[in-house]
Amino acid sequence: MELFGGIEAGGTKFVCAVGTGPGDIQAESRFPTTTPEETIRQAIAFFRQQKAVKAIGIASFGPVDPNPQSPTFGYVTSTPKPYWGQTDLVGPIKQALQVPVGFDTDVNGAALSEYRWGAGQGLENIIYLTIGTGIGGGAIINGQLLHGLLHPEMGHMRLPHDLQADPFPGSCPYHGDCWEGMTAGPAMERRWGQRAENLPLDHPAWDLEAYYIALGLMNLICTMSPQRIIIGGGVMAQAHLFPLVRQKVVTLLNGYVQSPTILEQIDSYIVPPGLGNQAGVLGAFALGMAAVG
Amino acid sequence: MELFGGIEAGGTKFVCAVGTGPGDIQAESRFPTTTPEETIRQAIAFFRQQKAVKAIGIASFGPVDPNPQSPTFGYVTSTPKPYWGQTDLVGPIKQALQVPVGFDTDVNGAALSEYRWGAGQGLENIIYLTIGTGIGGGAIINGQLLHGLLHPEMGHMRLPHDLQADPFPGSCPYHGDCWEGMTAGPAMERRWGQRAENLPLDHPAWDLEAYYIALGLMNLICTMSPQRIIIGGGVMAQAHLFPLVRQKVVTLLNGYVQSPTILEQIDSYIVPPGLGNQAGVLGAFALGMAAVG
Repeated sequence: MELFGGIEAGGTKFVCAVGTGPGDIQAESRFPTTTPEETIRQAIAFFRQQKAVKAIGIASFGPVDPNPQSPTFGYVTSTPKPYWGQTDLVGPIKQALQVPVGFDTDVNGAALSEYRWGAGQGLENIIYLTIGTGIGGGAIINGQLLHGLLHPEMGHMRLPHDLQADPFPGSCPYHGDCWEGMTAGPAMERRWGQRAENLPLDHPAWDLEAYYIALGLMNLICTMSPQRIIIGGGVMAQAHLFPLVRQKVVTLLNGYVQSPTILEQIDSYIVPPGLGNQAGVLGAFALGMAAVG
Repeated sequence: MELFGGIEAGGTKFVCAVGTGPGDIQAESRFPTTTPEETIRQAIAFFRQQKAVKAIGIASFGPVDPNPQSPTFGYVTSTPKPYWGQTDLVGPIKQALQVPVGFDTDVNGAALSEYRWGAGQGLENIIYLTIGTGIGGGAIINGQLLHGLLHPEMGHMRLPHDLQADPFPGSCPYHGDCWEGMTAGPAMERRWGQRAENLPLDHPAWDLEAYYIALGLMNLICTMSPQRIIIGGGVMAQAHLFPLVRQKVVTLLNGYVQSPTILEQIDSYIVPPGLGNQAGVLGAFALGMAAVG
């Protein structure tokens, strides 16, 4: 089996790994995301200590430029994260390690790994979402990653917001009460005055949270008609959300999409990642594999 | 040039045509959509009077079953339109005329014709929308039609609705104030008490209409990241809506999607159909062509 490298480039930490796929991660290193210079140097140092890899994949926080034809391919672009705006991630790593480098958003990477090895196996149209400190989404359509103009920004769609029932104005610096602004972890914390993981199971926060998640899923179903929706991330680690979300999606759709997959098999339609919390680093492997064909 | 047949199967009228593509429609017949038996019989009679065609494409009102592997492929499925629920469209036409028959939603057909000959030429990711008696959308992603589970139902996504500013509860029998329920022609007529085409240009209806259209487009941009959005249909025949909609999309996105296509070239990003009101029947041709290769 050929060895690949993966970098899960997150906004708070980097995970670097070497392996062949699920169940075979032969080395791994985690370190905090500090400045680009320091963080990229640590990543290069890790791979120099490992056996040679055929290619490296980088699954990055965004926004990024994933278009190989673009002069800024491989860059983290307009992020508000200090120091990281317009940072070339692919260039220095490729130059230092002299291997092909695949590059995409973290969620596109995770979508690809779930498609290849996880909960999306056997399907051709899936969406992978992460709901945590933000909301991001990636999609496989007809067996291929969706990029389009740049890449999706699913967390920023607009949804109904009843300000009388929920006066929290939303936490997105760009859009206020977009999906992410109402629903991600920081929104929960600011709305309720405590971190989501500290809210008791019978707190009304969870029903409202499931409703906002379901509204977003409804829109994804109406626009992209996925065959399965896979949801990871810190908020969805609260497994009790899944049944609530599924039930609300069915109620919201109200029988309009006449598919047995939704009407009868919703439990296998909206699911956690088959690869658990390894969807990210395995996504980076998958991007490395895709870079060499 | 090989001759193809097309059926634009609408909820109010059928358009049948024979030709080779844009600029070469050699015969055409239009008749009202009555019962399935009578309407399909008229379509068959039209094609029997024409020269032989290599294949026929049907671009149909929906919901439909466009999956060739399904036992109900070629059916109009759960439509509330009287007589038409669970109607086999492809079967009787294929049997009577003994030619290959391509079949899809009317909007997927129009997306394909715009991709092939119209405003989507040279791009690989486009969305075609019609905003008229309803809202429907089709998409080409990576050069292929998007189906997924069934097909998109873009008109039924949920959007912000400020009931104080706009107390109209929406007209969708399934979802009330979904995009279509707030925005399509019947919603305008019920909200303002007169048909949209009779509202003067300085009526506040248009600004609100452009806002709802823009909200939906924002969600399509966030979820699918199209390279261009093409909008036809009766409501969009009000050409003064285009500049209003474009400006509101830019305002709503608020700089988040850092693409010059949106930030600098919005006039060529959100556009009317390149094929004008022939996108529909040419879409049927394109589906016929796709059925044979």
